[in-house]
Amino acid sequence: MPSFRFYHPIEVRYGDLDPQGHVNNAKFMTYLEQARIRYVQHLGLWRGGSFLEIGFILAQASITFRAPILFTQPVRVGARITHLGNKSVHMEYQIEDPSDDQVMATGSSVLVTYDYKLGETIPIPDNWRKVISEFEGLSK
Amino acid sequence: MPSFRFYHPIEVRYGDLDPQGHVNNAKFMTYLEQARIRYVQHLGLWRGGSFLEIGFILAQASITFRAPILFTQPVRVGARITHLGNKSVHMEYQIEDPSDDQVMATGSSVLVTYDYKLGETIPIPDNWRKVISEFEGLSK
Amino acid sequence: MPSFRFYHPIEVRYGDLDPQGHVNNAKFMTYLEQARIRYVQHLGLWRGGSFLEIGFILAQASITFRAPILFTQPVRVGARITHLGNKSVHMEYQIEDPSDDQVMATGSSVLVTYDYKLGETIPIPDNWRKVISEFEGLSK
Amino acid sequence: MPSFRFYHPIEVRYGDLDPQGHVNNAKFMTYLEQARIRYVQHLGLWRGGSFLEIGFILAQASITFRAPILFTQPVRVGARITHLGNKSVHMEYQIEDPSDDQVMATGSSVLVTYDYKLGETIPIPDNWRKVISEFEGLSK
Repeated sequence: MPSFRFYHPIEVRYGDLDPQGHVNNAKFMTYLEQARIRYVQHLGLWRGGSFLEIGFILAQASITFRAPILFTQPVRVGARITHLGNKSVHMEYQIEDPSDDQVMATGSSVLVTYDYKLGETIPIPDNWRKVISEFEGLSK
Repeated sequence: MPSFRFYHPIEVRYGDLDPQGHVNNAKFMTYLEQARIRYVQHLGLWRGGSFLEIGFILAQASITFRAPILFTQPVRVGARITHLGNKSVHMEYQIEDPSDDQVMATGSSVLVTYDYKLGETIPIPDNWRKVISEFEGLSK
Repeated sequence: MPSFRFYHPIEVRYGDLDPQGHVNNAKFMTYLEQARIRYVQHLGLWRGGSFLEIGFILAQASITFRAPILFTQPVRVGARITHLGNKSVHMEYQIEDPSDDQVMATGSSVLVTYDYKLGETIPIPDNWRKVISEFEGLSK
Repeated sequence: MPSFRFYHPIEVRYGDLDPQGHVNNAKFMTYLEQARIRYVQHLGLWRGGSFLEIGFILAQASITFRAPILFTQPVRVGARITHLGNKSVHMEYQIEDPSDDQVMATGSSVLVTYDYKLGETIPIPDNWRKVISEFEGLSK
């Protein structure tokens, strides 16, 4: 499995924990979401203005939980785009502890490019396709 | 202390709990917020369309924590407006278990009437003043 | 597709919403979690005491997002167990608006029976298998 | 006003935002909570094991909201203890943008020292009093 070209660190918050004493399952989704948005910013595809300009909607998400995330752990999320369809983008994620390479979760999602002003899905813009393909080393 | 003319029930979610096994402190704020918005809807001051039409911003909030809220408890939040200033509205809250009248928290907040389109505070609209005063039995 | 024998109502909270004005994707997981725990309670498999007696851990979760959930919508989550393995339980979910039968999301998860005191996975207890099979009409 | 001897950085998450496009009010409480726990860790008063050893419960909290917190802002929370009573501890907080010294919120809370094993409040332990007084330059 190729490693990730983009990682985003996450600070576990006390408010992320549940009665089992570790990070609540739904917060894993929050961690993936944060990594996804930072990835989009990192590639220059969203400038941080209106959230209606992000240009993606989430169509499907999956997470496999491998180990609990503890309050005291350093955490980072690897994120990458593995496939560009016509209107859909496939992402993969890995939540890991960089201090010992433990993998706490893997995930994937399907995003659809969306124009919030038109209120409809649109083909992936050419410049997005170019930027993403080059960053990830995908064939265009 | 007069009782409340408006109560909103809250279902405690597993996702509201923290490692102490009871509702996390920050979620008390979420409960008060939910009661506040339902109160505004109940009085017909917000029709449920754009959130930019709610017309209030929160300036100050305080909570006194009296007892933990447990997953298995029925919970309701009493909310009332106790004072109308020129641009400010004072609210009081009580989080309680209606099955045994236990009070888990009391709270208060100061809201300021705000026009999101103008981006500035505005005097309390006359019709708001009328509706609220009549509902709460306040002198206008 | 058979309908669900268990539904749990969810009140959308203002605190569940994100800048797109609808329920944040991670909160869908919170809604499924809440339905799952109420299902387990409904079948008498957890009595509401220590959370370490719930007896399940989440191994995998998937959600397909079909439509946004709005603040003003009534929402319920259908939950059912579709398969009992040796140590694993398959659940399916549907988040819907009962006022017009719109489906906002479908989901599935794999749970593993777990003994928090031993700190290890265990086969599904016989009485759980009996209760679940009878409730869902599964062959044992 | 003396400045803070302890600051904790917070990364604003997309999941912290609400329909107004800025950080939801209840998340301000989460930010203060996170700073408070890191403060307690920083002073060596909690070693990061069981959460039942934190030794504090929150009795009262207040926040004054001065400016919205945006997704793109760097954020830090200053936290300090300003008074040690017999069983109570007074804390003050400031949420600010270190890039331009803008203050987005100030807050305060009253904590009570609590023994989770006994299930009762206890006087502030002598070593806590010593460590805190020295760190903050309080008279003991």
